[in-house]
Amino acid sequence: MISGLFVTFEGPEGAGKSTLVRSLAARYEAEREVLVTREPGAGAFGAAVRRLLLEGEDLEPRAELFLFLADRAEHVSGIVRPALARGALVLCDRHADSTVVYQGYGRGLDRAQLRAWNAFATQGLTPHLTILVDVPTEVGLARVTESNRLDAESLEFHRRVRQGFLTEAAAEPDRWVLVDGTQPLEAVLIEAAGAIERLFATAGA
Amino acid sequence: MISGLFVTFEGPEGAGKSTLVRSLAARYEAEREVLVTREPGAGAFGAAVRRLLLEGEDLEPRAELFLFLADRAEHVSGIVRPALARGALVLCDRHADSTVVYQGYGRGLDRAQLRAWNAFATQGLTPHLTILVDVPTEVGLARVTESNRLDAESLEFHRRVRQGFLTEAAAEPDRWVLVDGTQPLEAVLIEAAGAIERLFATAGA
Repeated sequence: MISGLFVTFEGPEGAGKSTLVRSLAARYEAEREVLVTREPGAGAFGAAVRRLLLEGEDLEPRAELFLFLADRAEHVSGIVRPALARGALVLCDRHADSTVVYQGYGRGLDRAQLRAWNAFATQGLTPHLTILVDVPTEVGLARVTESNRLDAESLEFHRRVRQGFLTEAAAEPDRWVLVDGTQPLEAVLIEAAGAIERLFATAGA
Repeated sequence: MISGLFVTFEGPEGAGKSTLVRSLAARYEAEREVLVTREPGAGAFGAAVRRLLLEGEDLEPRAELFLFLADRAEHVSGIVRPALARGALVLCDRHADSTVVYQGYGRGLDRAQLRAWNAFATQGLTPHLTILVDVPTEVGLARVTESNRLDAESLEFHRRVRQGFLTEAAAEPDRWVLVDGTQPLEAVLIEAAGAIERLFATAGA
């Protein structure tokens, strides 16, 4: 039984998702339980999987995909669903859509198959709201240090990724909200908070 | 381009697969390149994944499955295929059939789906020969120390697993050879070597 709200944050690297998530948590944590989490990397298992992903410079793309799915299955089952059952607001930095976008649009794996695997991994859990923080590819990449393999991809790959996020958001407008990540943080925060508060109102939360 | 031979060893725990694999390697390594390997656990990545599997006592079954598939994808791509391309005899302790049997027959996941995932993980590589070392459930379990979670399953689970291996072997008799693992090692070795030497003859290797 889910009584909480599951909000995910998606977008290209350097869009400012992590900062936004922390600011939103600070905004709501006085009034309700807020869980800030991420994929991959939450909990002890997620941290171990994330290390494998970051260390695996030449990792076979299929192995990489299955690691993301393993992290997701354990994260949703062990962390997200229990928090939602307690009624928490769960703010999650990247989730299933990142797999469709990075492995599908980015690496060319079959998107229908990726969606089916996501549904299996999450046992059907879908975010109530997904906030896409969009920035042009060059702007995002200029913001991140090229310090690990998740960043060490070609510009062309990152352009496909950005376009993939925009396509996914346009295809499911009831779930996604698009926020322009080139604005000052305060403006990004106001737009994202507006979307979350409309969700509170809809859910009677 | 594959010019080697890929032989996998399957069967319940305590069947004696590892000892058999080592004995077979010793028998052939003077005359050809032999690679002894296993799933999960080969190479640095496989070893890290295996540790996660062994440590993850309460791991979500879906997360466990995806870890096995991640290990398989990387193992086949990074270790097995290069060895086969060199013409090696690859002797692999557990492979894709273990996933169909343990996760399918054992844990009740959809077997057609598991087969499709295996095909994706291996990019279609199928063993030339699979040797099923069969022992009655109680005999196998009495041989293994109950020291990690891979062994800490119910007797009923292990009975389904044994039956699953026998069903799989019966369904694909051209690939599988059934060997009675309750025999002395020397007799098991002679039967397994016979199957491998018939494969050498067929393949002109």
